[in-house]
Amino acid sequence: MTTRNAFLTHCRDNLGALKREGRYREFAHLEKLAGRFPTYLWHRPEGVREVTVWSSNDYLGMGAHPAVLAAATRAIAEHGAGAGGTRNISGTSPLHAALEAELASLHGKGGALLFGSGYMANQAGIAAILEALPGFIVFSDAKNHASMIAGMRGAKGASKVIWRHNDLADLEAKLAAAPAEAPKLIAFESVYSMDGDIAPIGAICDLAEKYGAMTYLDEVHAVGLYGATGGGISERDGVAARVDLIEGTLAKGFGVLGGYVAGDAEVVDYIRSVAGGLIFTTALPPAVAGAALESVRVLKRDPARRTALAERARALKSALDAAGLPRMDGPSHIVPVWVGEAEACRQVARRLLEEHALYATPINYPTVPRGTERLRLCATPFHTDAMIAELVAALRAVLPRTAPLAAE
Amino acid sequence: MTTRNAFLTHCRDNLGALKREGRYREFAHLEKLAGRFPTYLWHRPEGVREVTVWSSNDYLGMGAHPAVLAAATRAIAEHGAGAGGTRNISGTSPLHAALEAELASLHGKGGALLFGSGYMANQAGIAAILEALPGFIVFSDAKNHASMIAGMRGAKGASKVIWRHNDLADLEAKLAAAPAEAPKLIAFESVYSMDGDIAPIGAICDLAEKYGAMTYLDEVHAVGLYGATGGGISERDGVAARVDLIEGTLAKGFGVLGGYVAGDAEVVDYIRSVAGGLIFTTALPPAVAGAALESVRVLKRDPARRTALAERARALKSALDAAGLPRMDGPSHIVPVWVGEAEACRQVARRLLEEHALYATPINYPTVPRGTERLRLCATPFHTDAMIAELVAALRAVLPRTAPLAAE
Ligand SMILES: Cc1ncc(COP(=O)(O)O)c(C=O)c1O
Ligand SMILES: Cc1ncc(COP(=O)(O)O)c(C=O)c1O
Repeated sequence: MTTRNAFLTHCRDNLGALKREGRYREFAHLEKLAGRFPTYLWHRPEGVREVTVWSSNDYLGMGAHPAVLAAATRAIAEHGAGAGGTRNISGTSPLHAALEAELASLHGKGGALLFGSGYMANQAGIAAILEALPGFIVFSDAKNHASMIAGMRGAKGASKVIWRHNDLADLEAKLAAAPAEAPKLIAFESVYSMDGDIAPIGAICDLAEKYGAMTYLDEVHAVGLYGATGGGISERDGVAARVDLIEGTLAKGFGVLGGYVAGDAEVVDYIRSVAGGLIFTTALPPAVAGAALESVRVLKRDPARRTALAERARALKSALDAAGLPRMDGPSHIVPVWVGEAEACRQVARRLLEEHALYATPINYPTVPRGTERLRLCATPFHTDAMIAELVAALRAVLPRTAPLAAE
Repeated sequence: MTTRNAFLTHCRDNLGALKREGRYREFAHLEKLAGRFPTYLWHRPEGVREVTVWSSNDYLGMGAHPAVLAAATRAIAEHGAGAGGTRNISGTSPLHAALEAELASLHGKGGALLFGSGYMANQAGIAAILEALPGFIVFSDAKNHASMIAGMRGAKGASKVIWRHNDLADLEAKLAAAPAEAPKLIAFESVYSMDGDIAPIGAICDLAEKYGAMTYLDEVHAVGLYGATGGGISERDGVAARVDLIEGTLAKGFGVLGGYVAGDAEVVDYIRSVAGGLIFTTALPPAVAGAALESVRVLKRDPARRTALAERARALKSALDAAGLPRMDGPSHIVPVWVGEAEACRQVARRLLEEHALYATPINYPTVPRGTERLRLCATPFHTDAMIAELVAALRAVLPRTAPLAAE
């Protein structure tokens, strides 16, 4: 058999299995309407329909903030649509440099380095760190994001120890069991995006100091959203200075695209000099950098959307609780609603969309473990009380009555 | 010693060594002027200066094409600055879908899948393929790009055989030596970006068919530029249908940002369903998709810029030859000029910029092997005869007289 035939057979079998298990993903075609967020147009062969989106990671609606759009439009007129080169090969504009300076200052660090996405920042950044010293051991929270795991997997010569999610005793036991002289990195997130829980950053830094480890913190679901100036949970908790590297995205709270790592100036300069995922790819367009820069600046000086987000999250949680719906508890703006089975989860989402014009993505494996399938909801500052009421009524209609809220 | 101290010492030592070897990269701050491409503003602490850029990968100047800018601006006004979610989590707009359909059609394939960059397309796409079948052997051209190598490295369970660059006899010997029943992938590029030479795609497909291998072709430096509709060298040579997977970028010939893989519809659907680098990252902004879509469409129907590029490349090559400058020969639009030593290369580029207001990136290790350092020049349709004359005169002044054109 030729490779092509074997490969095609594999693809077919695999797609068939995904469909049978209810895990086949169809990307809904959703047209974002800048002026009417979170209302989108859902495009189907049968026609176009208005829907309310409950699963956007544009948590603050910054993707439609007038100042952000104006910055993007201006940069396109002035600098065009693309960077036209890698950062080293004519692709570094003054906007890139200004954005990096702004991000370093946001986290109180000596430097920051832009990547094409938060995914790339994690993948390339973590690999660059772990490959720097021989025998590096990375202590990875069990719920770390796929992009962090990709960075660890990609690091030649490093070994990985997984500690139980947010479990300080387990982390300490594992740090203590490792050779004292081995270089150590503790890699974790602040807000965990599928559960909505938050890491005890300060206590993790205590352990890092006790065992001489470095810390790498993914604040992807927190930057822009928490802290007095949007610096994330590490800013809110007053511990940013204790974290060695803070990684973030420009694509969620900031509403645009891109990722970054912030840290000591020399460390950032080193990563800049060695990371393949930075060196060998075209820089972000100046217009993306310009829009993100504006978004970071707006959120630095004006906490209004942050405050509104927290208030809306509370309103959504109360409404779900009042209706007795199986909400998974958590202290953040992320509100998962439990389903617990892949096909059921898909059906719930399908009925929400088709019968109620509400879009909520079914979250299934590999994004979450099998058997913990859920809807993941976020109320942005633009989700009104009426929208919340509409959502709750629809969920009562479509959630399976027996949906068990398993202890995790 | 704490990890932090050991790591800081490593960073310092390493940065020091890069500086001593002349390999430390400083990103020039270059402001692209949409209306005046290839003239940029070079920003330094001392002030701002106009320079002509000779190292842009915006090969056709599409990054400043009025229709592309109009599409980007319109999409920003309509859909905002960011996608706000992964492709699966509300991040697929009709523009993404239309762009994928357009790219599939550009290459005559059943499907195409967008990634955040060409780098991600290679890294995630190749890994997804190689992990599909046990015992996959990838036959990799020795000059393959870092992003393809990252994809191979990231593929668990696959093994890699490197064949001599563009050497069919070596490729065949290695295919013949491998177990007949092992699944095989031949991975190569069309236009090699640092040398400017072009692969014999048809002959490689002959070997693939003879040995039952699949083919994966990186057309990053060719899409938009070659072929009747911009489908790349595989279109120009009439062999696109014989190549299993064609990978490309939207950030060079098309002037925007993003990457993709095109192939059989089921294969693309499979990659879409399993590739971590697609599933776990925010989708490109609708405005990026819209701008790229316009660019692909413009270049599909109008070959004027392609024709102009070929003519300008000939003009640049003739001018360099007439001046007896050490140009590395090649059939493509990429024109490397040999220096052969890292620090000398850096100095040549520095003097071009400071003394002649001409920007050409020094290309050094790890982008090319040590001892083959070079400047890499491209004349876009917007580089005039006067600009070419100015460049040639400047190169005569700054190139070391002894620069040997080593046989490679
Ligand atoms: C925890 C975490 N880190 C990193 C990323 C990647 O960020 P980006 O979307 O900018 O690639 C995501 C989600 O996409 C995430 O959830
Ligand atoms: C051969 C090759 N493939 C892939 C890439 C990556 O493409 P992108 O810049 O879109 O990430 C590049 C250069 O950047 C390249 O030279």
